[in-house]
Amino acid sequence: MPTDSGKTRSLNEGRVSLDADRQSRCGYPEVVYGEGKSLEAIAAIFREQLSVSQSPFATRVDPATANSLLSEFPEAIWNQTARTVRIGSSNEPLGSVAVITAGTTDLPVAEEVAETLSWMGTSVTKVNDVGVAGPHRLPSRLSEFQDSDAIVVVAGMEGALPSVVAGHVGCPVIAVPTSVGYCANFGGAAALLSMINSCAANVAVVNIDAGFKAGYLAGMIARQTHSSPTN
Amino acid sequence: MPTDSGKTRSLNEGRVSLDADRQSRCGYPEVVYGEGKSLEAIAAIFREQLSVSQSPFATRVDPATANSLLSEFPEAIWNQTARTVRIGSSNEPLGSVAVITAGTTDLPVAEEVAETLSWMGTSVTKVNDVGVAGPHRLPSRLSEFQDSDAIVVVAGMEGALPSVVAGHVGCPVIAVPTSVGYCANFGGAAALLSMINSCAANVAVVNIDAGFKAGYLAGMIARQTHSSPTN
Amino acid sequence: MPTDSGKTRSLNEGRVSLDADRQSRCGYPEVVYGEGKSLEAIAAIFREQLSVSQSPFATRVDPATANSLLSEFPEAIWNQTARTVRIGSSNEPLGSVAVITAGTTDLPVAEEVAETLSWMGTSVTKVNDVGVAGPHRLPSRLSEFQDSDAIVVVAGMEGALPSVVAGHVGCPVIAVPTSVGYCANFGGAAALLSMINSCAANVAVVNIDAGFKAGYLAGMIARQTHSSPTN
Amino acid sequence: MPTDSGKTRSLNEGRVSLDADRQSRCGYPEVVYGEGKSLEAIAAIFREQLSVSQSPFATRVDPATANSLLSEFPEAIWNQTARTVRIGSSNEPLGSVAVITAGTTDLPVAEEVAETLSWMGTSVTKVNDVGVAGPHRLPSRLSEFQDSDAIVVVAGMEGALPSVVAGHVGCPVIAVPTSVGYCANFGGAAALLSMINSCAANVAVVNIDAGFKAGYLAGMIARQTHSSPTN
Amino acid sequence: MPTDSGKTRSLNEGRVSLDADRQSRCGYPEVVYGEGKSLEAIAAIFREQLSVSQSPFATRVDPATANSLLSEFPEAIWNQTARTVRIGSSNEPLGSVAVITAGTTDLPVAEEVAETLSWMGTSVTKVNDVGVAGPHRLPSRLSEFQDSDAIVVVAGMEGALPSVVAGHVGCPVIAVPTSVGYCANFGGAAALLSMINSCAANVAVVNIDAGFKAGYLAGMIARQTHSSPTN
Amino acid sequence: MPTDSGKTRSLNEGRVSLDADRQSRCGYPEVVYGEGKSLEAIAAIFREQLSVSQSPFATRVDPATANSLLSEFPEAIWNQTARTVRIGSSNEPLGSVAVITAGTTDLPVAEEVAETLSWMGTSVTKVNDVGVAGPHRLPSRLSEFQDSDAIVVVAGMEGALPSVVAGHVGCPVIAVPTSVGYCANFGGAAALLSMINSCAANVAVVNIDAGFKAGYLAGMIARQTHSSPTN
Amino acid sequence: MPTDSGKTRSLNEGRVSLDADRQSRCGYPEVVYGEGKSLEAIAAIFREQLSVSQSPFATRVDPATANSLLSEFPEAIWNQTARTVRIGSSNEPLGSVAVITAGTTDLPVAEEVAETLSWMGTSVTKVNDVGVAGPHRLPSRLSEFQDSDAIVVVAGMEGALPSVVAGHVGCPVIAVPTSVGYCANFGGAAALLSMINSCAANVAVVNIDAGFKAGYLAGMIARQTHSSPTN
Amino acid sequence: MPTDSGKTRSLNEGRVSLDADRQSRCGYPEVVYGEGKSLEAIAAIFREQLSVSQSPFATRVDPATANSLLSEFPEAIWNQTARTVRIGSSNEPLGSVAVITAGTTDLPVAEEVAETLSWMGTSVTKVNDVGVAGPHRLPSRLSEFQDSDAIVVVAGMEGALPSVVAGHVGCPVIAVPTSVGYCANFGGAAALLSMINSCAANVAVVNIDAGFKAGYLAGMIARQTHSSPTN
Repeated sequence: MPTDSGKTRSLNEGRVSLDADRQSRCGYPEVVYGEGKSLEAIAAIFREQLSVSQSPFATRVDPATANSLLSEFPEAIWNQTARTVRIGSSNEPLGSVAVITAGTTDLPVAEEVAETLSWMGTSVTKVNDVGVAGPHRLPSRLSEFQDSDAIVVVAGMEGALPSVVAGHVGCPVIAVPTSVGYCANFGGAAALLSMINSCAANVAVVNIDAGFKAGYLAGMIARQTHSSPTN
Repeated sequence: MPTDSGKTRSLNEGRVSLDADRQSRCGYPEVVYGEGKSLEAIAAIFREQLSVSQSPFATRVDPATANSLLSEFPEAIWNQTARTVRIGSSNEPLGSVAVITAGTTDLPVAEEVAETLSWMGTSVTKVNDVGVAGPHRLPSRLSEFQDSDAIVVVAGMEGALPSVVAGHVGCPVIAVPTSVGYCANFGGAAALLSMINSCAANVAVVNIDAGFKAGYLAGMIARQTHSSPTN
Repeated sequence: MPTDSGKTRSLNEGRVSLDADRQSRCGYPEVVYGEGKSLEAIAAIFREQLSVSQSPFATRVDPATANSLLSEFPEAIWNQTARTVRIGSSNEPLGSVAVITAGTTDLPVAEEVAETLSWMGTSVTKVNDVGVAGPHRLPSRLSEFQDSDAIVVVAGMEGALPSVVAGHVGCPVIAVPTSVGYCANFGGAAALLSMINSCAANVAVVNIDAGFKAGYLAGMIARQTHSSPTN
Repeated sequence: MPTDSGKTRSLNEGRVSLDADRQSRCGYPEVVYGEGKSLEAIAAIFREQLSVSQSPFATRVDPATANSLLSEFPEAIWNQTARTVRIGSSNEPLGSVAVITAGTTDLPVAEEVAETLSWMGTSVTKVNDVGVAGPHRLPSRLSEFQDSDAIVVVAGMEGALPSVVAGHVGCPVIAVPTSVGYCANFGGAAALLSMINSCAANVAVVNIDAGFKAGYLAGMIARQTHSSPTN
Repeated sequence: MPTDSGKTRSLNEGRVSLDADRQSRCGYPEVVYGEGKSLEAIAAIFREQLSVSQSPFATRVDPATANSLLSEFPEAIWNQTARTVRIGSSNEPLGSVAVITAGTTDLPVAEEVAETLSWMGTSVTKVNDVGVAGPHRLPSRLSEFQDSDAIVVVAGMEGALPSVVAGHVGCPVIAVPTSVGYCANFGGAAALLSMINSCAANVAVVNIDAGFKAGYLAGMIARQTHSSPTN
Repeated sequence: MPTDSGKTRSLNEGRVSLDADRQSRCGYPEVVYGEGKSLEAIAAIFREQLSVSQSPFATRVDPATANSLLSEFPEAIWNQTARTVRIGSSNEPLGSVAVITAGTTDLPVAEEVAETLSWMGTSVTKVNDVGVAGPHRLPSRLSEFQDSDAIVVVAGMEGALPSVVAGHVGCPVIAVPTSVGYCANFGGAAALLSMINSCAANVAVVNIDAGFKAGYLAGMIARQTHSSPTN
Repeated sequence: MPTDSGKTRSLNEGRVSLDADRQSRCGYPEVVYGEGKSLEAIAAIFREQLSVSQSPFATRVDPATANSLLSEFPEAIWNQTARTVRIGSSNEPLGSVAVITAGTTDLPVAEEVAETLSWMGTSVTKVNDVGVAGPHRLPSRLSEFQDSDAIVVVAGMEGALPSVVAGHVGCPVIAVPTSVGYCANFGGAAALLSMINSCAANVAVVNIDAGFKAGYLAGMIARQTHSSPTN
Repeated sequence: MPTDSGKTRSLNEGRVSLDADRQSRCGYPEVVYGEGKSLEAIAAIFREQLSVSQSPFATRVDPATANSLLSEFPEAIWNQTARTVRIGSSNEPLGSVAVITAGTTDLPVAEEVAETLSWMGTSVTKVNDVGVAGPHRLPSRLSEFQDSDAIVVVAGMEGALPSVVAGHVGCPVIAVPTSVGYCANFGGAAALLSMINSCAANVAVVNIDAGFKAGYLAGMIARQTHSSPTN
């Protein structure tokens, strides 16, 4: 295998290569997508990142792997609902994001959003169970989220919540459709289509169940809002 | 053509046959779907229905045909936005239904709903332009629709409005997705899918742009609510 | 977690909050969607509802959870086919609804419809196995369902039954497509599309397998028909 | 262009080649699909077929082309609704097929079915406007179609009619979904899916608006039923 | 449960009712769809049918149930590949049908076709493994199928085989798309769409994996071809 | 029509109501979606907004209407490619956004993005015609966009450009799929699906051809980045 | 606009930039996609290419634009069926490709394939009207195409022809689905799905109606086959 | 079973027949698709092929079957990631193909591509983990793949990599969408649609996860490039 001009460090396993320059280029270290990766592969990346003082973060980690990681890295934080394992935060605290859910089935994705934000060093406010069919719930909690730098809304079923939230605020709203719901929602496609067609101008959408991506985007916006502009 | 045991009167044109017993069987006379029908065919049915004291109602009538119908039947009511022509009402006044729209592009379908209700003898309350992205609009008009016997909600785009309306009321909500909207909504399929996945328990759905059907169902429920039960 | 101005009682588990005002606002108490909820979460809501004299109702309850609920609440009624557990009825008896199925594979959804109606205090008539391919079956049972206040039709495959039923009656018909059938029906999408395109004016549709929703809507219509109108 | 071992006669226009052996191989001559073909191309095939004593048949012919064909071939039969032009029948009379429609919008496709059958020499019985929402219509006309050798059912919207017809008879039913209907039916896809999922065992399906194909299959079955078996 | 004017005999289990008049009305007895039915339910129908001298036939029977049926009915024929159990044939031998497959993955569906035909009393010729990518295979076996009364073609993947077979013969071809194939075929939807769009006029289509339906239709056509016409 | 507690001023036309408080609530005045609106309706809103010192902005304006608006409002800016008309900017200049396109067919949407940003008071950098099939184009222009506060990428066809752009930068990327392209792209659905599945963590998506929405979100992010945080 | 390090020459119109190095990098000059481009834009590129001795080629050119191009460039070849205009060939003659069509409606796409090949300097053999429903047509013309370096198969409807052709040859087959056909083929999606699922190992697929792309790939393969390898 | 004129040798199992002439007709022996085939069936074909000096190759072989094959054929090569078993190569070494992947989840498909090429006697260069979100990865490895005779690109998610690779090279690119990815990609349909819409002219597409097919086509092109042309 050729040398990638110093940018990529080859790990033992041969298949995993760490993009160590990512933090300087993008502001945050590389994140490990755990699904299908062996414990050894994930642990190798964690060791590598710690050796260059980067904060490791892995998503979609199954319980057995998570437990083993905790044995080697006792300082790691495992969020069982979110299926994430991380060590510390990649940056100093800056900005705040609200994570809003429609119902309890949306919690695993919402927790992945929250862990991503915590890893980025962004403050998180959770507003759960405020689906649109309970019309008084969301307005009664307006004060908790209306001054956020960005908002992530996690919802399945008809995917109406992001539009309603967006009407109450003047910041960007990132919508995440979820695949698990009360009835047949075609694997999240109904919510995805609904969110893409939102009548609210300040709503953008990420993929079904893509909690990490939504958290990453919201955290990026929140941190920009509080950083000293460079240009 | 065989005789249908007295139930069907053959009209001149040969292709249209009136189901004259429909009013006694279902409570309302037959309705003429105007698209693709000639002026003569529609006029023949109107004459036939008037001769047996039924109230004619035609939907999807183009302007030229509507104008010609008005010449022969000066008492007819042509709603240009709804594309309907009707003569009188089929029943005495009973019950009330609210017709709620998200935006101005939903008005043609909403007017078809309203004309259907007027033809059935049901009182109509129109609540327009209360899309979910303007969060204060719907609650400020709650008193206008919360005591309706049934509600029809007409919406395109993300189709979120029926779920929000349903959370405010204790009566059945009929949702109509619309095909015309601000952006690509896949001919109304996005709103249809969203409404079918509504988290509110009191929402049922009819086809895209099916204003007549929604009005007919809502009117039927409203009239049942105010009739003396027969069983 | 903030206090929701007295409207929401926080339960022990932290994740479940009961909308106790729902009965006065909508006419019926909150219903528990059991899928993914722990026994403890469901039992906590049941206790809470009983303490305020509301009738508990849970859908999509797995057998193990149902058995445990019966131990604590011996008066509960577990319908194994419907996968529901309820205690009593939320209202005094009023109105009648027919639940019609095409074939035996539709029975679980139909039983969920029937349990919902029983919980609401609506009388249920079951007409099973009258699919359209046996042409003499439905007409021979007309007297059983033609005077209903509303009808729920549960069907998979081609979803033709609601249209045929609707032609025989003058009341609203709620159609429920089912996902389980004799052959590939694309998870119920074929029946859903068919029902949405019904040529009968008095048919509205709910989501695939959404027995609770169909029962709730039909029960609401039936009760309105027999209540003294308030407006 | 190479010689196709005597089987294909090249016509003047260069692009059209007649499969003259088709009648002996398949029982019927080649049929001209008129859409996009010039008058001269169609006329050339007609002349060629008449010169070898075959009966010409063209489908999807626009009015201008049809009028011109009638000038050259005064014995031709132009069915304006079906958009077909034919000269005589390809075979002696044999067998009978019923063509059943749900509503008036299905007539153009049904007429294409009927013309195809007439061209094949099969007797046609037309049973129009017996959609499932008028429950008494179909049974009242049972005697007209129950002894057919095969039945073609043409229907749009929910596509329920073929299943209902099939339950009344013991012969094959060919179902044709139509694209033109009362509301959004996704170009006929809803009816196609519905028919493919028919619960009746004796229903097979052809493409949307494929009147010729349905007529051809039904005619083939009807003729086989009355021919002396050869094997 | 009401009495269906003598037409339906209620069996012990309560949920299964035998349509005993079906043989006189449609020519063949009722068939048992085994999926989800208990051993007792199937056995009860078998006993009932034998008591009125009808030939029982069950499809989609799992191995355990099939073994138990064989214990009670030792004369039964269990085709393990087809997943069918039958006792005798419903009619005297008449007509012949070819069942043609593209590849080995199509065999389970093809065997269901063949068992259906054998139960109907129709002679079966099997032509396996003649997919279109091996261009010499099908023509070399032409003599085996070209004089059939009808042909069933079972194919997955691109679904091209029915069109090719149809070009060789002058009888009806029933196409069955299969869901199991070499690669991602979207559960058979690719083959279904392809077959529905067949350029051959003598191809009709049934549902994905619907071996019983295809066999039933082909058997019906074959028997009609050899029966003395009654009209 | 009821009074909406002072929040909504009713205009002459009756159908259009201005949300005048929107600027204080969301930071920007209401925007007019011009499609289907009459000249008089748009002009009335423009007059109303100017009277309360808001900057009018209308999208999807046809040429005839635009010309008439310019007659009454000579200071208006009509961008013919973008189909927008605006008067001034709603805010003082702040922040910068790059708008990147894959090919020339994406220009109308990109111009709508740019006009939206100009109306918001955000500086715009246009980087056109850097589709991924020309691999040297994008990197050669990196310096033009890498320090943007946010980036909008407009692309049709395979929708690959947003992922590639996102890999080069550390700011949020808003992706807009376009419906007009070189070949069949299913009305933009191919690009939409591709962008939703982007492997880059900093990409969110808006609807097909939704230039206004993308510009609005990007402008909101850019302005937040340069405003003094308020929380 | 920045200077792209000499690689891109800006033309007058401002929006079109010629990738003049493309011939040395990819072997062929840039091709002009004519749809939506003005006459002046196309003519400017043609002049620019001729000035650097490249052979211009434009696809999707409407008749008016083509006629005007012929006035300025009398040596240009306009293929009206293909909608292409080209001047000369970009390379010396090398290799041969067969272009095979199922029916006459496929000719416009096939001609675009052929013009692309001629412009590349590849010899073309056309084999038209050999759809699979005429089983003797393709084998009878085998000698014309079996020694090609690559084959392009253009087909709509069920898209079966590429699989059948591929079984006869040992070279790569490029399949092009077409959107125009005899019946509803969902805009070419049926043929596309069918071809993607081809059971033949030597079939790859390009987009619906993508004649240029298919020709370009086939020409590239043919020329490679006859060039002296460089590696 | 009839004798297929000497072309097909029937094996013991009865269901598998070897197309022994395939190597002379197409250049390579038949390949065994292992899914659903018994060990005995695969072993029988291997023995048969070895007896006529052909190189056996089986894809989609499960581990148990692979282990048993290795016991009988110790010279066989089992690639566990690719799920393939082969013995030797079918041809002398000729040509070279690069296999490029976006991420680690694409490796099983890429290994199937590579094994296919090795079996064909084509040299393979693997370039892994160069997804478009890491913008510097692909260009830094350009020298490894830019002189290939053909390139296979394996990618899931947004499927952007083939377009980017194609812009760098002048040879055919075969794109393989994969079904396994980081998030919901609708079973590979998103990547498939994206690749079919590639803006690069030299990209053709095979089915989802179709590693064998992509390798076969690329190998065929590579070998043609280095063979002495025969026509």
